[in-house]
Amino acid sequence: MTTVDTRAVVDLLGVLAYAELTAFDRLAEDARMAPTLAGRAALARMAAAEMGHHDRLAQRLTELGADPTEAMSPFVAALDGFHEGTRPRTWLEGLVKAYVGDGLAADFYREIAGFLAEPDRSLILEVLADTGHADFAVREVRAAIAAQRTLAGRLALWGRRLVGEAISQSQAVIAERDGLARLIMGGTGDLTGVVRLQERITAAHTERMKALGLNP
Amino acid sequence: MTTVDTRAVVDLLGVLAYAELTAFDRLAEDARMAPTLAGRAALARMAAAEMGHHDRLAQRLTELGADPTEAMSPFVAALDGFHEGTRPRTWLEGLVKAYVGDGLAADFYREIAGFLAEPDRSLILEVLADTGHADFAVREVRAAIAAQRTLAGRLALWGRRLVGEAISQSQAVIAERDGLARLIMGGTGDLTGVVRLQERITAAHTERMKALGLNP
Repeated sequence: MTTVDTRAVVDLLGVLAYAELTAFDRLAEDARMAPTLAGRAALARMAAAEMGHHDRLAQRLTELGADPTEAMSPFVAALDGFHEGTRPRTWLEGLVKAYVGDGLAADFYREIAGFLAEPDRSLILEVLADTGHADFAVREVRAAIAAQRTLAGRLALWGRRLVGEAISQSQAVIAERDGLARLIMGGTGDLTGVVRLQERITAAHTERMKALGLNP
Repeated sequence: MTTVDTRAVVDLLGVLAYAELTAFDRLAEDARMAPTLAGRAALARMAAAEMGHHDRLAQRLTELGADPTEAMSPFVAALDGFHEGTRPRTWLEGLVKAYVGDGLAADFYREIAGFLAEPDRSLILEVLADTGHADFAVREVRAAIAAQRTLAGRLALWGRRLVGEAISQSQAVIAERDGLARLIMGGTGDLTGVVRLQERITAAHTERMKALGLNP
């Protein structure tokens, strides 16, 4: 473990804190599209869990002497841009986005967390832990596809679009933050390491698409 | 303490469970109007706390052998109607609504809870406890009025409109649910008791308007 620049840690905690706030927002918005009261409550519950994660990250930022708002600010435009560009039009698109999109982001952040020292590594792994959304999304999407086979093609297309948008936005974030870029390069060791990291993330994404019953 | 019809208890827990779900929803929506990231996180945090309350009520309903969704269903139309009819157009209107409207509702439910046996009485008092929203709303609204005096008149009008809508919607709810109406009549004893209950609620409402710096 090499020593990591505190600014890079603050960047990582900041982008995650804002990601949790937008996750809250988005799950709350999707909850309103739920076809049942039980589904609406389930999504609202997950949104609430994301806020719990947000608070833990904000608290850690404060401990490190950083202001949570300042730490989040550099990432507002990129994350808002991603969500504006991938606004679900249906309940199912929302579920696929939350499962596939958040899964991809979580894998990426988990890889970077591996380069950090404690307690930040554990904190990040904890807040990235699934809030029950994965099982819920898989169950709902599979049931919907079973009832209407034609949905599979459209949702698979949606899944691929999410990945494209996520990649271009995360590249924009890394390009903007030198500390984060150095953290990734330093952690992976070299370009081969970066390629392997991408391969692991892609493989996990393929598994998630399959779990939903979608062609990756 | 007279014995209370279980159906009335289920009704009360049901309307509260749905009220918490809509409170979550509305705070989450208002959070997006926040002028700062800190304000947005503060409202999202309060929304998350409401979901915690919702879950406790749903759990109690299940304990009583009731299905939470079924218990909430009779109140969806009235509560959605109230919120549709009083949709805040600004951040400040949202804060006044949450403080004045939720305060009024909480007072009303607290009065009814007093007629119930334990553990339901304590559970209801607990979930009605303020989630920090009151202080936050008072601070923000007072600061905004101090900066721009003309806001006070408009927001006072808004506060009065909220009360009118809340009264007409709660009358609709009670008219629909015999058990609830009997619970209130039985608990207050007679019409004089009902009038006193209304007086207490009105007095508390007046205090809240004053706390915001608004003419009741």
